[in-house]
Amino acid sequence: MSQASAYAAQSVKTPLGPFSFERREPGPNDVLIDIKFCGICHSDLHQVRDEWGGGIFPMVPGHEIAGVVRAIGSAVTHFKVGDNVGVGCFVDSCRTCVECTAGDDNYCQVGITLTYNGRDKQGQPTYGGYSDHIVVDENYVLHIPENLPLDAASPLLCAGITLYSPLKHWGAGPGKRVAIIGLGGLGHMGVKLAHAMGAHVTVLSQSMKKADDAKKLGADEFYAMSDPETVKKLHNSFDLIISTVGVAMDFTPYLTMLKKDSTMVLVGAPEGNSELNSFGLIANRKSLAGSMIGSIEETQEMLDFCGRHNIVSDIEVINADYINEAYERMLKSDVRYRFVIDLESLKK
Amino acid sequence: MSQASAYAAQSVKTPLGPFSFERREPGPNDVLIDIKFCGICHSDLHQVRDEWGGGIFPMVPGHEIAGVVRAIGSAVTHFKVGDNVGVGCFVDSCRTCVECTAGDDNYCQVGITLTYNGRDKQGQPTYGGYSDHIVVDENYVLHIPENLPLDAASPLLCAGITLYSPLKHWGAGPGKRVAIIGLGGLGHMGVKLAHAMGAHVTVLSQSMKKADDAKKLGADEFYAMSDPETVKKLHNSFDLIISTVGVAMDFTPYLTMLKKDSTMVLVGAPEGNSELNSFGLIANRKSLAGSMIGSIEETQEMLDFCGRHNIVSDIEVINADYINEAYERMLKSDVRYRFVIDLESLKK
Repeated sequence: MSQASAYAAQSVKTPLGPFSFERREPGPNDVLIDIKFCGICHSDLHQVRDEWGGGIFPMVPGHEIAGVVRAIGSAVTHFKVGDNVGVGCFVDSCRTCVECTAGDDNYCQVGITLTYNGRDKQGQPTYGGYSDHIVVDENYVLHIPENLPLDAASPLLCAGITLYSPLKHWGAGPGKRVAIIGLGGLGHMGVKLAHAMGAHVTVLSQSMKKADDAKKLGADEFYAMSDPETVKKLHNSFDLIISTVGVAMDFTPYLTMLKKDSTMVLVGAPEGNSELNSFGLIANRKSLAGSMIGSIEETQEMLDFCGRHNIVSDIEVINADYINEAYERMLKSDVRYRFVIDLESLKK
Repeated sequence: MSQASAYAAQSVKTPLGPFSFERREPGPNDVLIDIKFCGICHSDLHQVRDEWGGGIFPMVPGHEIAGVVRAIGSAVTHFKVGDNVGVGCFVDSCRTCVECTAGDDNYCQVGITLTYNGRDKQGQPTYGGYSDHIVVDENYVLHIPENLPLDAASPLLCAGITLYSPLKHWGAGPGKRVAIIGLGGLGHMGVKLAHAMGAHVTVLSQSMKKADDAKKLGADEFYAMSDPETVKKLHNSFDLIISTVGVAMDFTPYLTMLKKDSTMVLVGAPEGNSELNSFGLIANRKSLAGSMIGSIEETQEMLDFCGRHNIVSDIEVINADYINEAYERMLKSDVRYRFVIDLESLKK
């Protein structure tokens, strides 16, 4: 066992503060990782406030983990001490169901072991990346390409794969018109990735505030949904729309912007129910779909893609004692585009 | 010009009654059809009551038309006098857009000419099948296989193709588990067609009332949604769910019954907005889609399929003066499973 320094929420009502807990001794298949940086995902906030229910407290959030291998178990073959590595949203799965054996372990039918706010196969609560180190089975550890800085690469482990997977699955690429709804932590990764895949990229935002930013990130076009002309102008325009919005909404106006046989994919996960008018799907045989992160194999593929294209997240690095303030700013979309905690700050 | 006897709604407030109007003289490409039978579709009721807006009155509903060719224009090549023929939901389309040229004329991007409650290319209102004859361009006329009785075949022109098209598009067939929500005019065709395609068919109904019927129609299983065990028991069960329900609903419980990467297709068209929780789509990369009738080419394919498999609708034949009462009974689901008007009754 080793003592870990961390930031945790002691209960749903309390702000995050310093916390200490024990990590397991690395087993033969485990990798011990010194965590250098951890991105702050909107789902950290949802879970710390128990908005999805079933929260396990104390809770150490964090599933956008980037660090360096400090030690490896005797049977570890894919990692060595000193490697730049990442850990994403899950640290285990059943490994035997139809999805796991097909390489779609993120959709494990028994259930993935979440990196935090989950329980491992021994029933122990899992603690995430707002901590100085972590012990993870090597099958759930990713290589981060050496040319990517660890701080800006950390959000790739959740925000990156969450957008990469649906862009690949629904065929974003040359000749395809892709729209990204919302330009936040998820959305800005969507713009960069879709652009790098060769697609024509449009951002649909509430206002024109981020239009210049979007162009710099790689967007070809930018529209404000607050402008009543937008929906008319973009009627029947897109081969794929990805919504990164985390609040319940009416999907109907967006569906009118899809071409026939095209799909709008939800990756944001609001609490409540959203609305839609069935005609919006029926008229041109459209689909509304969902997508949840990506498999370990696909996450490695995404990281390698980002390495080749020099893609990382746009970040603001903070110390651990700023997490609660960062949450408040995140709620106001006051970050461009991802907070990343420097875990070195835990030692201060 | 020829005088047509019909039943029409003079306004949104009035019941249907006898009506006389003029059909155009058949042009070189036209087929003049003596209408023998016309099915009553739920959308007739929606449109007569102007629930979808934009209704054109007087309105002669009816787009499940079965009849016999009385005369053909000089350039008609695919039909001859005496042929059993059908006309479905549309009688023209632009013929030049990307969808029309690809054979997907039901999704014509300029807009199909509806068989009734539409306007033809000259801007004249179209009148449907609650009438004794109709004049239609041969490209929008279908051959009804000689082994199928015209009365029970008429609902194939809308209810049949509305189910056949999504069953084909989303791959219903041997080894696939298909659920049909609602056992009415659309649903009972879905059961027959999916069964004939070789799929395992489950009906999801509100109560167990129609369970015996469903088995006779070809269903393998039947569940009542009023039983709280149904959703749990059918978790992760279906490769395809088709909803024939015409009222707004919460899709969330049905989405839990889909397998990963599977689709729930809406063919019923409620007025208002329906609800869904995004998690229901995200968790296993599921889709909610829509489908609208089928192309002329696919409608012929469906009719030929029904001819080979001896599939027709289960019907109750009525006289024209019973239409208003039939509407009321249809609203109470008091028909097994489709009212069909015998147009001979117009002559009485």
